[in-house]
Amino acid sequence: MHRCLRSLLRASRNLVTVQNSAISKRPCPLAWYRMASSTTFRIERDTFGELQVPSDKYYGAQTVRSTLNFKIGGVTERMPIQVIKAFGILKKAAAEVNKDYGLDPKIAEAIVKAADEVIAGKLDDHFPLVVWQTGSGTQTNMNVNEVISNRAIEILGGKLGSKDPVHPNDHVNKSQSSNDTFPTAMHIAAATEVHNVLLPGLQKLHNALEAKAKEFKDIIKIGRTHTQDAVPLSLGQEFSGYVQQVKYSIERVKSSMPRIYELAAGGTAVGTGLNTRIGFAEKVAARVAQLTGLPFVTAANKFEALAAHDALVELSGSMNTVACSLMKIANDIRFLGSGPRSGLGELILPENEPGSSIMPGKVNPTQCEAITMVAAQVMGNHVAVTVGGSNGHFELNVFKPMIIKNVLNSARLLGDASVSFTENCVVGIEANTDRINKLMSESLMLVTALNPHIGYDKAAKIAKTAHKEGSTLKETAIKLGYLTSEQFDQWVRPQDMLGPK
Amino acid sequence: MHRCLRSLLRASRNLVTVQNSAISKRPCPLAWYRMASSTTFRIERDTFGELQVPSDKYYGAQTVRSTLNFKIGGVTERMPIQVIKAFGILKKAAAEVNKDYGLDPKIAEAIVKAADEVIAGKLDDHFPLVVWQTGSGTQTNMNVNEVISNRAIEILGGKLGSKDPVHPNDHVNKSQSSNDTFPTAMHIAAATEVHNVLLPGLQKLHNALEAKAKEFKDIIKIGRTHTQDAVPLSLGQEFSGYVQQVKYSIERVKSSMPRIYELAAGGTAVGTGLNTRIGFAEKVAARVAQLTGLPFVTAANKFEALAAHDALVELSGSMNTVACSLMKIANDIRFLGSGPRSGLGELILPENEPGSSIMPGKVNPTQCEAITMVAAQVMGNHVAVTVGGSNGHFELNVFKPMIIKNVLNSARLLGDASVSFTENCVVGIEANTDRINKLMSESLMLVTALNPHIGYDKAAKIAKTAHKEGSTLKETAIKLGYLTSEQFDQWVRPQDMLGPK
Amino acid sequence: MHRCLRSLLRASRNLVTVQNSAISKRPCPLAWYRMASSTTFRIERDTFGELQVPSDKYYGAQTVRSTLNFKIGGVTERMPIQVIKAFGILKKAAAEVNKDYGLDPKIAEAIVKAADEVIAGKLDDHFPLVVWQTGSGTQTNMNVNEVISNRAIEILGGKLGSKDPVHPNDHVNKSQSSNDTFPTAMHIAAATEVHNVLLPGLQKLHNALEAKAKEFKDIIKIGRTHTQDAVPLSLGQEFSGYVQQVKYSIERVKSSMPRIYELAAGGTAVGTGLNTRIGFAEKVAARVAQLTGLPFVTAANKFEALAAHDALVELSGSMNTVACSLMKIANDIRFLGSGPRSGLGELILPENEPGSSIMPGKVNPTQCEAITMVAAQVMGNHVAVTVGGSNGHFELNVFKPMIIKNVLNSARLLGDASVSFTENCVVGIEANTDRINKLMSESLMLVTALNPHIGYDKAAKIAKTAHKEGSTLKETAIKLGYLTSEQFDQWVRPQDMLGPK
Amino acid sequence: MHRCLRSLLRASRNLVTVQNSAISKRPCPLAWYRMASSTTFRIERDTFGELQVPSDKYYGAQTVRSTLNFKIGGVTERMPIQVIKAFGILKKAAAEVNKDYGLDPKIAEAIVKAADEVIAGKLDDHFPLVVWQTGSGTQTNMNVNEVISNRAIEILGGKLGSKDPVHPNDHVNKSQSSNDTFPTAMHIAAATEVHNVLLPGLQKLHNALEAKAKEFKDIIKIGRTHTQDAVPLSLGQEFSGYVQQVKYSIERVKSSMPRIYELAAGGTAVGTGLNTRIGFAEKVAARVAQLTGLPFVTAANKFEALAAHDALVELSGSMNTVACSLMKIANDIRFLGSGPRSGLGELILPENEPGSSIMPGKVNPTQCEAITMVAAQVMGNHVAVTVGGSNGHFELNVFKPMIIKNVLNSARLLGDASVSFTENCVVGIEANTDRINKLMSESLMLVTALNPHIGYDKAAKIAKTAHKEGSTLKETAIKLGYLTSEQFDQWVRPQDMLGPK
Repeated sequence: MHRCLRSLLRASRNLVTVQNSAISKRPCPLAWYRMASSTTFRIERDTFGELQVPSDKYYGAQTVRSTLNFKIGGVTERMPIQVIKAFGILKKAAAEVNKDYGLDPKIAEAIVKAADEVIAGKLDDHFPLVVWQTGSGTQTNMNVNEVISNRAIEILGGKLGSKDPVHPNDHVNKSQSSNDTFPTAMHIAAATEVHNVLLPGLQKLHNALEAKAKEFKDIIKIGRTHTQDAVPLSLGQEFSGYVQQVKYSIERVKSSMPRIYELAAGGTAVGTGLNTRIGFAEKVAARVAQLTGLPFVTAANKFEALAAHDALVELSGSMNTVACSLMKIANDIRFLGSGPRSGLGELILPENEPGSSIMPGKVNPTQCEAITMVAAQVMGNHVAVTVGGSNGHFELNVFKPMIIKNVLNSARLLGDASVSFTENCVVGIEANTDRINKLMSESLMLVTALNPHIGYDKAAKIAKTAHKEGSTLKETAIKLGYLTSEQFDQWVRPQDMLGPK
Repeated sequence: MHRCLRSLLRASRNLVTVQNSAISKRPCPLAWYRMASSTTFRIERDTFGELQVPSDKYYGAQTVRSTLNFKIGGVTERMPIQVIKAFGILKKAAAEVNKDYGLDPKIAEAIVKAADEVIAGKLDDHFPLVVWQTGSGTQTNMNVNEVISNRAIEILGGKLGSKDPVHPNDHVNKSQSSNDTFPTAMHIAAATEVHNVLLPGLQKLHNALEAKAKEFKDIIKIGRTHTQDAVPLSLGQEFSGYVQQVKYSIERVKSSMPRIYELAAGGTAVGTGLNTRIGFAEKVAARVAQLTGLPFVTAANKFEALAAHDALVELSGSMNTVACSLMKIANDIRFLGSGPRSGLGELILPENEPGSSIMPGKVNPTQCEAITMVAAQVMGNHVAVTVGGSNGHFELNVFKPMIIKNVLNSARLLGDASVSFTENCVVGIEANTDRINKLMSESLMLVTALNPHIGYDKAAKIAKTAHKEGSTLKETAIKLGYLTSEQFDQWVRPQDMLGPK
Repeated sequence: MHRCLRSLLRASRNLVTVQNSAISKRPCPLAWYRMASSTTFRIERDTFGELQVPSDKYYGAQTVRSTLNFKIGGVTERMPIQVIKAFGILKKAAAEVNKDYGLDPKIAEAIVKAADEVIAGKLDDHFPLVVWQTGSGTQTNMNVNEVISNRAIEILGGKLGSKDPVHPNDHVNKSQSSNDTFPTAMHIAAATEVHNVLLPGLQKLHNALEAKAKEFKDIIKIGRTHTQDAVPLSLGQEFSGYVQQVKYSIERVKSSMPRIYELAAGGTAVGTGLNTRIGFAEKVAARVAQLTGLPFVTAANKFEALAAHDALVELSGSMNTVACSLMKIANDIRFLGSGPRSGLGELILPENEPGSSIMPGKVNPTQCEAITMVAAQVMGNHVAVTVGGSNGHFELNVFKPMIIKNVLNSARLLGDASVSFTENCVVGIEANTDRINKLMSESLMLVTALNPHIGYDKAAKIAKTAHKEGSTLKETAIKLGYLTSEQFDQWVRPQDMLGPK
Repeated sequence: MHRCLRSLLRASRNLVTVQNSAISKRPCPLAWYRMASSTTFRIERDTFGELQVPSDKYYGAQTVRSTLNFKIGGVTERMPIQVIKAFGILKKAAAEVNKDYGLDPKIAEAIVKAADEVIAGKLDDHFPLVVWQTGSGTQTNMNVNEVISNRAIEILGGKLGSKDPVHPNDHVNKSQSSNDTFPTAMHIAAATEVHNVLLPGLQKLHNALEAKAKEFKDIIKIGRTHTQDAVPLSLGQEFSGYVQQVKYSIERVKSSMPRIYELAAGGTAVGTGLNTRIGFAEKVAARVAQLTGLPFVTAANKFEALAAHDALVELSGSMNTVACSLMKIANDIRFLGSGPRSGLGELILPENEPGSSIMPGKVNPTQCEAITMVAAQVMGNHVAVTVGGSNGHFELNVFKPMIIKNVLNSARLLGDASVSFTENCVVGIEANTDRINKLMSESLMLVTALNPHIGYDKAAKIAKTAHKEGSTLKETAIKLGYLTSEQFDQWVRPQDMLGPK
């Protein structure tokens, strides 16, 4: 094997490589995602035996074991940080509710404190697990339990790894199971990403398009159907279609949310709620709702909430529709802005970067390109979510990490791209009115307006002749002697063709 | 080429083959979709010239021309008849509204009469066009216009093909364009299929599952997570998850409908409503609502209604979620019913057909197979709809026939399969209580119940020993001397493990 | 419910409706797919009891039972006739091989004769089953066995339904199982459809594009990247890209075929070949190869051949790539042909039907629309095939009918659409050289050619000024005094920009 | 907005946030992907003006500008490092070939040196751009040009940002364009990932499965079709099907590679090769082949190579088929390993992590879960690639970064997951022969073997009675008096049911 290839080979195996027997060597992951890590270790144990845990990390044996067993995809494939933060919220809420049910307040408060640090992003370095782990997300739940317990132990002056006085299972995971906490975190993460990123992004885009629709309302232009010339409309009308698409995009996403607001917490291992307390489910949901300001409730049926992820498939479907809308809008804008000389040229798009060093006026519609790529990605993500969502078995769907990864990715990309597209493209779009008017006045389609005055046959004759000779309707009409220049101007008025009579 | 291959070649070209120059020979399509056709012809003309039209058909030149230009896919690829019937409703509504705006009542009434025949399915033979035609569906709109005009002419005693006294464009298509009528027909067809087939099918399935959930509410069984043994739940609880999935399936579909109820009619060629009258759009929508009993309204924005089909992508997304739900439920049922000896064997599925002549008790879960195949198809249809929906340009999306074909196919298949699955499988499902109890009593998972009584360590010892020795928990517990038979029976009570405390 | 809606409801339930207890009434399916059927019946029985079978049909009890149990989708959802014909070939081959192994020659020959009629399409009316049946296709295998046995009985002077002297299972299905025959028929059908429809269609398109590439080789035009003006290329070069895409389309499909040529026959129920004879598998494959002229062989591993359909997923993937190619080509052609006045206008597409009664020159690119809709459908079909292909369990994949339906649909649609697109569009494409030259000469991009002569700065100045003033490069260059008209013509030569130096 | 929500909001906007006017503040991205960055800056300029560039970074103004314009998705969405390394190889090859064509050797060698550092991963920190940028990947090409030029300048003792003596465009990008280099890098990256990760992973899995097939060849077990009991096969035969699937997976991927080995380099802006030299394309491809040891050649048609990415859609399609195979295999293994008491229980899967603290023997099939999630992701990625691949326009497909991101992700995930699945699951699978034998001996299906000895009717009677009474075949047969114990043992021999006779 050639040297270059070998080098690439090494590079592509960029995940932390650890020998099974001992964590003596920890080669760095890809340099640009470097995670500073300790070279000293403490010993932690789980039911499988002892493992070396980096001294500067709060996670424990089960987390380390997962890094050893799932070397799949590398650092870019880590469990989305939004899931970790959602777990922080859930663990905080659970600790508070558990306190009501009798958990030692000192322990509960230490858990809350540690969970707050997770929520605030202070402990992000302590969540190294990838998405491609167990399909229930158990290992991420345990990662969270371990980190919170160790941090809480530290807060209370205990020894890391001692599980005392705060036990990852008995205290942090109290009244919970991976099987109900992970789906709960999925819903919290999805809902917050939708509210924090997706909906604001879409709203921003909506507003910018609406402003443009108003700005362009009096600019009359040629319509195009089948990509071919058609009867006129105003540029504002054309943009109003985009406004409507984005308005409905927002409605579609919102209409999926009621089922996302349902939380599985309280179902524990199979949905029955074994080992939890009556009322726990409702109280946790209420507390999460308080903490997030979003109307979370306990799931109507916990069996469905663990065994299926229809609600996330549905949300993904709404985002898939949003992707279609954005693809359409961005495609229109780049084609209408094509040119500068050999395209349609009706819109002038903002120049954001050097297009070509030699050709001024070549503005590549890069924002349209970014958002249409995002749209394609969201369509793909949706199929992944669909396949995962359809493959649950019995009491548990075990495609959970993959599903939430894709849903969050879609929400984030759509939201971010909408903002980028708005700020760097939409708000700066100008109408090239000279070009619009030229195309408009040259159009053969306006001949329609002559029908009532000179009859269909003569009108058709004008159009056919003009097309054949490459002349304008007006020139041709006058040349054919069917009407005067004044009559043409009086009868052929695009502004009268913009609505019903 | 071998004879057999040639034979197949001929067979696979099963669409009506017509020579471009003259329609003298019309080889039959696939025998089993035979359409009796005339061997005599009349001459009709369009702006491109003359064409021979079968004497016994109401369609005209533009329809014939489309059959010549689009020999794609054969008879199974015809425009769905639901679209044709929806057009019948629209043309009827438009004629009535046009009468209010001054259309000769005699003509209007003849159109209404002919449209009624289209709605009633009496003229189905007269709509030969395939889906794979112009992307605006123009040719199907003209097919409808031609058939209704010729039938109306016949009703009024005129001559077929004369366009007098009922002209396909001037009268049947009055105040309309293909560009607004086709999307209107799409929405009418989708909404009626949803209401007539999809929702009743899902409701039927829901009710049957709900009845089973009640019937099974006291049967306690082993739960399964990760396909592995877990703590118990009742069979009724397990089924309640399916009930919830189907309940939400219905909600999901319904939540997509408001945007389907918006009709494009009145937008004409590009959405402006050129050549139509103020109020026409609203009145047509109201009349369609009356005729169908569904709450159709005129589209809030006609530009969006022509240029995008987000509403149908959204509906398709809802059906995609339904497909995921049904896939999950049917998979569970076939696995739970697997056996008779070497499977899980908890459910007894109805025998509907000979499974194997030699092996009694081999019941193939064929209804599960049919509905999961339907689910896979719906997921595929959804991608087709998504790709089509994202590729609209300017004032018109030209993937219309493909989009509606797939949406209608999904709605029909899901609805029909739900009914078939319900009638031929769900209602006849029985619990194999012997087997359920056996698995239940042998389960190692019940050891959990002993923790409070003998402590975790002893409980674990029991479970480990039982697993190793292949014995039951009870036997092992007694053998180890940790408790008596009576204590075991008193403490290990699955019925106490079905909910929170 | 409103009358109209009820009417639609009835229409949408267009499958043969038969009462479970007695087949006394058989309401017609959708009129346009009418299947003439008997009103008299004979009694046939299977292990479940007696059933009424239409007297004029060769099928028997198991077929009738399937129509009763699977009322899903209606006539358009019938098992593709290519599968039936492939079964005809297989049953013929098996009978001949069975004769070698001792089957009564009289029976074997009658089976061959009946199978020949199936292959020839004479018995198409006798295969009423839909795709949405058992996932192994057992019922279609039995439909074929029943039809061939009854027809063979008839040939031999016996009584329909008597199973004597030709038994559907013992003779027609001898040494076979549904589990190996259905996948065999799938591969035969797919291979023949690829060879008869898909590859010839693609080749035809390839040849037409190649002819155009040659025809257009000297026409120099503006290039477009990011939909924006770029440096020139020849129209022939542009078309050569399409030629390459279609050339590779053909290669891609062909590269999938070796695994399609593998036949499962001989694997019987689970792949072991129980109840068949050593050598049967190889002989049947060889006979099928003879009959079809295609290089079929027996599958290397029968367990894989029954339990997975990776080969068809792979073929579907190749067709998915073809769909991408065709989408790209057809999109380019419709945009390059857009206009007549307000589009790019570089190509003149053939007029195949009236575009608009009022606007001459409005040629809707309907063939592009049909083929891009087909492309979208193929992408959707591919996902359905993928989902089905991934969901096999143990010894049998039970998504077989759905998978083959989609594969055949994709092959047929792509092949037919390629022919239609070629004949009705590609061969008639003309270059609008006036328009091409005008855009070319107005392009600012040509300024690149001046760099070596007057330096980058002056060249840029020319381009920027021309863009700003809307003037040509030549005018601007002369006006700025950087060069003479002669120099411009000598230096700015697009024909020198078409390749490396 | 609640505090928690705000905190999440901040977290989810984790991309480097930079104010447009001045790069004075650079909030850190997500802590765990921290990129140490300078707080001092140098000024660089492009044709749009001046920009502050972090002093410790080699990239320049165009890279910074892209980070300002495309705040989409955050650090996990960065251009895959494999693309950067592939660019390193390409830039090195181009510099060497350019030297042959006259580029100053000193400059060429400095470029080569800097490119070697890119290949070796030493400069990974200097490539901050995300995938969601311009669809041609221009900004990543410029990022590479800037980094290599600045690093080469540094090597030659020059001043960063001076573009002297090594200019990013004139020297590093010499004879190149983004439009041909980016697709070249795509193909290099895809081919190396396939060779370094995907194929070795699949081969490893293949070998492990093959070893198991041999190990298990004499273990006879019940077959399952339709998830129901069927006739027996050996466990080795069952595994041989998986072996075949993976063997063909490798063939499928390989069969896609010839078209991946074609490089676009030399096509420059639109495919014509303007501004490059005759022979450049061939020499660069040959040099890349040398550097990588892979058989790269120059693309047969450069227009196709820029405007379409069919080759990558094809490769993605092959990986999609691989995903189907792996999904099937992993599903089988988890179901066959289900239990310990209430599942099929035929396989014993290795325990890799604590399943449940209370239930010994509960081994969650987590490796199966990881690889099936990967399979679902690959199916989704494939749709994204398909949508992107179908949407190219004119001379350039502008979905390039999205396409390559997904292709690389699929290759990596499939390769890594295959290794993880092999090492942590397949190699440790054991047959639970007790359970297998028990199911086998209890099976009713074996009754088939009695047909030749006691006749079908008696055999059926035995099977029916045994099923009804829950007894074994043997017990029942003896009890019914049809045969002796010895006869049963002699006649019912599963080992004789494993093949044809």
